[in-house]
Amino acid sequence: MIIGVLGAGQLARMLALAGKPLGLQFIFLDPAPESCAAEVGEHLQGAYTDRALLAQLAQRCDVVTYEFENVPVEIIDLIAEQTPVYPPAKALAVAQDRLLEKNFFRDLGIATAPYAAVNSLAELERAISDIGWPAILKTRTLGYDGKGQALTRSSEDLAGALEQLQGAPAIVEGFVAFQREVSIIAARSVSGAIVYYPLSENQHRNGILRLAKSSANDPLQSEAEVIITRLLEALDYVGILALELFDLNGHLVANEFAPRVHNSGHWTIEGSETSQFENHLRAILDQPLGDTATRGFAAMQNFIGGTPSLAEVLAIPKAHMHLYNKAPRKGRKVAHATLRADNPEELAEQVAVLKHLADQSDDS
Amino acid sequence: MIIGVLGAGQLARMLALAGKPLGLQFIFLDPAPESCAAEVGEHLQGAYTDRALLAQLAQRCDVVTYEFENVPVEIIDLIAEQTPVYPPAKALAVAQDRLLEKNFFRDLGIATAPYAAVNSLAELERAISDIGWPAILKTRTLGYDGKGQALTRSSEDLAGALEQLQGAPAIVEGFVAFQREVSIIAARSVSGAIVYYPLSENQHRNGILRLAKSSANDPLQSEAEVIITRLLEALDYVGILALELFDLNGHLVANEFAPRVHNSGHWTIEGSETSQFENHLRAILDQPLGDTATRGFAAMQNFIGGTPSLAEVLAIPKAHMHLYNKAPRKGRKVAHATLRADNPEELAEQVAVLKHLADQSDDS
Repeated sequence: MIIGVLGAGQLARMLALAGKPLGLQFIFLDPAPESCAAEVGEHLQGAYTDRALLAQLAQRCDVVTYEFENVPVEIIDLIAEQTPVYPPAKALAVAQDRLLEKNFFRDLGIATAPYAAVNSLAELERAISDIGWPAILKTRTLGYDGKGQALTRSSEDLAGALEQLQGAPAIVEGFVAFQREVSIIAARSVSGAIVYYPLSENQHRNGILRLAKSSANDPLQSEAEVIITRLLEALDYVGILALELFDLNGHLVANEFAPRVHNSGHWTIEGSETSQFENHLRAILDQPLGDTATRGFAAMQNFIGGTPSLAEVLAIPKAHMHLYNKAPRKGRKVAHATLRADNPEELAEQVAVLKHLADQSDDS
Repeated sequence: MIIGVLGAGQLARMLALAGKPLGLQFIFLDPAPESCAAEVGEHLQGAYTDRALLAQLAQRCDVVTYEFENVPVEIIDLIAEQTPVYPPAKALAVAQDRLLEKNFFRDLGIATAPYAAVNSLAELERAISDIGWPAILKTRTLGYDGKGQALTRSSEDLAGALEQLQGAPAIVEGFVAFQREVSIIAARSVSGAIVYYPLSENQHRNGILRLAKSSANDPLQSEAEVIITRLLEALDYVGILALELFDLNGHLVANEFAPRVHNSGHWTIEGSETSQFENHLRAILDQPLGDTATRGFAAMQNFIGGTPSLAEVLAIPKAHMHLYNKAPRKGRKVAHATLRADNPEELAEQVAVLKHLADQSDDS
């Protein structure tokens, strides 16, 4: 079986590494001349809109998936005329537009921050008079890792914030004074079987995920499962879905979802019986989904812009290094390490050591 | 870093899959036109004795290793003039010759079956008069998976058994009426650090390993560690070493060792904190060795000649499939599956299901 992947970055690379033992082969389409997935599959280099390459992908692959949510939906529709593409285009369309996404949550009865679409300073001022300060102005599309966002604390910030967005369609959201950021990852197969991973507790800095930690027996696990099930079923979803949530006084507020394998699930490679990467593949191939139970306690530390030496990381007991073979560049995710532990205290100790190493090599 | 590997079969493939997250790249030398490791590295196709290819391998790689023990020792010596090769040539030389191997065990005070070198019918008869019946005649070199062996139960068998060996230098060994076959796998790094895996209990059929099972808290663990430590140190060994042993009335009798990653250690991929493949790479790169603790209980079932469907295997809870992408051929190892469980009873149940599936697709 051959799996086509739009994108050839680290997520595609880790999908392929999970797929090789299942006997799968991979073809990646990516405009970058060099890609870190190319060493575990075939890299078709070209634009995502290149009709000839898309036709080739559709023709040669048994199923096509993607590693990032900014693929144009028309492309998915085009490939889907010939070959199944998962997750479905609808999930992609909703995830690409913060307004559609928030409306979608609202229509499913899922709590979100207060929000409103804004296209002018007047609309923005009116919206904030309902929402209150602080409020976050965000482009409706193309935002990731905190890009395309501006925090506003008073009327003086508004004009500048709007200007920063350069006229892009936007929404404004109320700030959620959350206690924790968590995510839930679930897989749904073509046949409709669903499995859920334990919640991940996530720490961001400058809008980029730094640390994700498995949360065993989280009091909000079942609430999160109820919410993500609504999404999975409403979207007739297939594959891994990641949903970011805020824990606000013991209740969950939905932030955004990603229709793909997710950075906050990287600890599942060693920390779960079956990784998110393998379960994504099992789901889109309609194979039985794998057990998602955690193996003890696990955490994942991202390395941004640079990495400690391999020896420093591997010297930490039960640390597992994942280098992506990407050229280091300011603010770029170049690697992560997973920590496994048999109890939370051991995990906390190891996280402290690894965080210190990561901070030393982090350039952002 | 680039790792050279002599051989491009499933062991090389699994080494490369373990090495990608460490940022390693792989070049395989193998005479076969198609190889199952080629999809995770570069395949140099040619004879192991091809001087130009060996020079290329030595020049392009940072360190060279091998996946099977029938590489001519002269080739290792040749590469080692330019590039480090691990495990060391001495280990290979001893492992290639059953007589040297048995003498080596004996010189280190490690118990073996009674044995003698034999080059004629007269010598064979004399040896068996000491050793007793039944006795196994084996070629000194090139035997694996039960090939090059003949069991003899009485004088009438002897001439035929010798004939079967076609004049190859041979040894005869007494039959050990063992209760269990076990193996111990250990890794020793360039710096001399050593880690040990828990014993594996192994079941063979027709000379080929079928099932290997982690043995938690085995009463013979420390005895096995003492024995393998003697070997590791006497050989100034670097890499993974696998030692097959018989449990004879609660004591260990050495059978043979393999200077490489080993089929009885495949369950370490999911069943241990760090797999034998990753620890082999860490060892030869002189990186800190990884924790070898088991994650619960694990077993590995080989698939010979054919496999059940992916769906049948993946439907077993906590089963992990490893297809090698090798063309099925009678008696050929084409895949394995690992089972993980939280207790021995759960493992036994799952093993029974998997064994049944394996028997249906097994052609030997």
